[in-house]
Order: sequence, then structure tokens, then C-alpha cells
Amino acid sequence: MIKIALDAMGGDFAPEATVEGALLAADELPSGSEVVLVGQQSVIENQLGGRQPSAGKLSICHAPDVIRMSEHPTKAFTQKPESSIAVGFGLLRRGDVQAFCSAGNTGAMHVGAIFSIRAIEGIIRPAIAGFAPKITGGHAVILDVGANAEVKPDVLAQFGHIGSLYARHVLNIERPRVALVNLGEEEEKGTLLTQAAYQLLKLNRHVNFVGNVEGRDLFRDKVDVIVCDGFTGNVILKLAEDFYDLLEEHHIFEQLEGKVDLDFFRNFNYEAVGGSPIIGVNGNVLIGHGVSSAMAIKNMCLQAARMAEAQIHLKIKKALSED
Amino acid sequence: MIKIALDAMGGDFAPEATVEGALLAADELPSGSEVVLVGQQSVIENQLGGRQPSAGKLSICHAPDVIRMSEHPTKAFTQKPESSIAVGFGLLRRGDVQAFCSAGNTGAMHVGAIFSIRAIEGIIRPAIAGFAPKITGGHAVILDVGANAEVKPDVLAQFGHIGSLYARHVLNIERPRVALVNLGEEEEKGTLLTQAAYQLLKLNRHVNFVGNVEGRDLFRDKVDVIVCDGFTGNVILKLAEDFYDLLEEHHIFEQLEGKVDLDFFRNFNYEAVGGSPIIGVNGNVLIGHGVSSAMAIKNMCLQAARMAEAQIHLKIKKALSED
Repeated sequence: MIKIALDAMGGDFAPEATVEGALLAADELPSGSEVVLVGQQSVIENQLGGRQPSAGKLSICHAPDVIRMSEHPTKAFTQKPESSIAVGFGLLRRGDVQAFCSAGNTGAMHVGAIFSIRAIEGIIRPAIAGFAPKITGGHAVILDVGANAEVKPDVLAQFGHIGSLYARHVLNIERPRVALVNLGEEEEKGTLLTQAAYQLLKLNRHVNFVGNVEGRDLFRDKVDVIVCDGFTGNVILKLAEDFYDLLEEHHIFEQLEGKVDLDFFRNFNYEAVGGSPIIGVNGNVLIGHGVSSAMAIKNMCLQAARMAEAQIHLKIKKALSED
Repeated sequence: MIKIALDAMGGDFAPEATVEGALLAADELPSGSEVVLVGQQSVIENQLGGRQPSAGKLSICHAPDVIRMSEHPTKAFTQKPESSIAVGFGLLRRGDVQAFCSAGNTGAMHVGAIFSIRAIEGIIRPAIAGFAPKITGGHAVILDVGANAEVKPDVLAQFGHIGSLYARHVLNIERPRVALVNLGEEEEKGTLLTQAAYQLLKLNRHVNFVGNVEGRDLFRDKVDVIVCDGFTGNVILKLAEDFYDLLEEHHIFEQLEGKVDLDFFRNFNYEAVGGSPIIGVNGNVLIGHGVSSAMAIKNMCLQAARMAEAQIHLKIKKALSED
């Protein structure tokens, strides 16, 4: 039985988007699963307006306090133990739920993960992962997308390893191809960082390293795990998301409905993925966009359920302990 | 009278694409202008097959040797003084032409520019610039896109300055907005490099600095000069170029011809721009894509003519000498 905690107060459109998203997710989750809405009980109940999905797939865990988007992450997390984010991490730490998601303060979610469930032993730096659509369908995982703007070569090499485990166990890719983002394909190209990381990845026996990948090849199904520093990954992810928005603003999807298969382009929509997992901590944590819609919240909860089912954090822990 | 030298032997589709592109450019250039095809005379004449644009707007400068795409840039440039690239730089250095373009070996073009016409005094590192389409029309200039994978903060600040001069004098933007690529909008975001560059750009009185720009805002007409290290710029440029290819492969342009205004998306096509200028050297130098088509070659020549008319390298020299 999978239980997913969702921060009902997190995101620009909470509680409407969060509660509606939770209802949608509850409908799609297998029976026995449950979404736990964490936040102010009266606010959540008001939004629910008496609605309940069948088979008790929704419950509420009261948290009287809220961390705002603008608050300082560390300060807010430590000084507001009754906030929805702190209470959610409490549920996760005690094993009352198998995953925790929020579209609220990203920094507070990151700090909360590090402070409450902590990094897995052997993890140098946990990463926030994003997803890049593949032209042949599905997504590649890209890490890091913002938690670590500056990294050392060994961190990039470890991103390749934990990203592989994620792709294998959550995205069900048998032997994930790992590549390093670079400005050329040749081994000696790039910065001192990428040159050193290239050598470490090449030698890493846990990783099916296929070499460098350039900006033009990110979506070309040449790679399943895209490795880069958080600065580069953040720029790539936001650029790709904007590409979807630009197509939508120009009514491309409407105009070509039924004429051209645009599923690949639809996969650039952040809502299709819903959330960015923190990889390398002792639990399943997902961070959503501040602007998350109900659809995005639903997909974040479903992704959380897949991560929980795969027990990806335990797989990573096991792999590192055997290293 | 503007004379543009074009490496007739450079690029995957030379001499066909280069000679055809030169003919197209010659047709569009004002009378009195001239495109000088640099390369093996017999090969060029063979491709021309007797064609000549009106008013003698095309000429040939024989260069018996060729630098191949795969050759080592420095070695090839110094050991092949009769190659089309070396001869082209000779014409430029002596003032026989006002610009030199090639879709050949990028490294050799870069080395050639540094060795033969040299960096302008005061330039820390010349940059290769690219162009990012703006949703409102036209392009922003982005630098660096690959010449300098690793840079110091003062280099980024200078990119802001020389990029501004380019945007003002070549793109005719009165007071160009300069922004720094970063993973967040706030001043303190990013790496040690971007944090330091932010402060230098803020203090630089030659620059209309508008702060950080994220991946999602690059095409949103918030900025005219996009400043970043060559690693980041290269990833952005290649990613953006691939967007165009992806749209074309899905027949989006064909399907929506006449129904939706897609000029903005067409501007992602590398052919629309044609070439990347090297900014900060004592002359007008442009580097084209290896895969350059005749259309790309044409637009590279026209861009070279605009740079030559604006005398952008002299404007930069003057600005730096007054600094």
C-alpha cells in the first residue's frame, strides 16, 4: 500500500490546484493507495467541499503553519516545525508515507530533505533531476537541474551512476545510456570540469557511458541519462519548458490537432512530468513548479507513486553500499 | 565600396553551396559591392559554369591549398600559407577586403583571426557570437558561444560591453539591454563566476545591465545582449537550432503555411543568420556552420557586409581606447 503526502499549501495556485490535483491522482492510483493532503484542515476541507474519491484514497494531515514562497529556506524550515513542509517530511521520516511532494518553496524542500531524511551514505551531493523528452517517446533524466550550480568532477560521475539507477528502476530502461553535456563530441572538448568528469565516467563500471552530448542532440534519443552541473541543467530545462509555452502561445497544438502527431512536443510541457525528484536522499521527494496546475500536481503524485513502488532510494542505498 | 572575401572551399557542401551562396549574395548587395571567392580557381570556375552576376560583383582570388575540417587548427593554419583560409586572412589584413567569411574549419578561422589580424588592444578574449530570436522579431546577440569555454568574471563583463556595441551598431538597437545568463533572477544566484560578473556588469558604465536572465526568458524580448561563458552559450545555441530542425522534421512549417505567423520560429534556423562573428579582433570575421547551405552562405555574406558598413571593429577599438 503506497501513501503519498502532498503539501496542500504549496504553489502559487494552492489550495485549489493541489486539492484538485490530489483528487485526480487518487482516481488514477491503484486501490489501496492514498494521497495524504498536508496543510490547514479547514482550508483543505473547504476546497474539497465534501468530495471524496472512492475507497478512502484521500486523507488530511493537519499542519497549521505555511512556508511562503519568498521565505528564506533554512530559516523557514527550522523555525516552522508545524508548517506543511516540515510536517510532510515528518511523515516521510517516520515511514507513515512513502513519498512527499510539494510545489511550494523549492529551497525549503531541498533543505528539508537534507535536514530531515538526509543524504544517503556515500552520496557526495544529492541532485534535483529534470526530464528531457525523447523524439522516440518518453523522457531522458537530466541531472542536476539546479541544486548544485558548481560541482566537482566526482560529483558529475556520481550523477551518472544515480541517474542510471533512476532510469533503470523508475523509467524502466534496461541499460541506460549516460552522456555528459559538452560543447563538442570529442573527448578532449570542454572545460577542465568536463574533461575530468569524462575520464571518471569512462572508468565507472556502474555506468554505460556513451560520451559527450551536445545541445543539438539532447532530445534525439542518443541518451537516457544527461549529466551536467546544476547551472547548465537549469538553463536547458527552463529553455525546453519555454519552447512548449512558445508553441502553445502560437496555437500550434490547436491548429494541428489530429493532423500531426505532436506528442513529442507535448512532452516538453512541465505539466506532463509534474515534478522534479531529489535523487540521493533517504526517501522519495519531489519538487513541483511554483505555477503548478492541478494536472501538474496529479502527475507529480503519480510519479511519486512510481518512485515509491520502485523503492528507488533503497536501490541507490544498496548500490552505494556495495561500491 | 564593400568587398567581402568568402572561403569558397570551406564547409561540407563546398564549392557548390559557397559559389551558389556567393551568387545569391552578389545579387542582393548594393552596386559597387563585391564578393571575392577565395579558393582553387579551376574548381570555382567549374562551379560557376560561366555565370557572373551583373556589374562585376563577383571575383576570384586563387588559393591552391585547402584546410580540411578534421585538421588541427593551429598546425594547419601555420603550415598552409596558401590555403583559402590563410589567403583570405591575408586579404583582410592588407585591407583588400573589409570582411572574411568561411564555413570551413572553425578552429582554423579562430586561430587565423588571432594570428593574422589579432585581438583589439584591451580585449581580454575575443568572443564568437551567436543570435537568439526575439519573439517580437529580430535577434538578440549571445556571446560567447564556444570560443571560451572557461572565462573569468572580467571577461564576461567585457562581453557585455562589446556585445552592446555590436547590437547598437550592427543590429541598430539604440540602447541594448544586457543580461547575464543565470539559474535565477536574483542578484546572489548562480556560481562564483556569475555572482562576480553580475557586480562588474552592474558597475560598468558602458553597459545597460538589466540583471540575470533565465533559460525561459532568452527569447522573450527581455534582453538584446545575452552574456555567458562559451560552454553555456554553445549548449543554448545548438539546442535552439535543433528546435527549428525538430519543427521542420514534423512538417510544422508546411502544415501551417499561411495560417499561423511562424517567422519567429523560422528565425531559429541557422540559415536565417548564416554566420557567427568573431567579436574583438581587428577586422570583420564570420564563421559559418559546417553544413552551411547556399542560403546560409548568402546570409553570412550579407551579415558580413552589414558589419563592414558599420565598421564595428573600429567602433570597438575606439570605445576601448577611450576606456
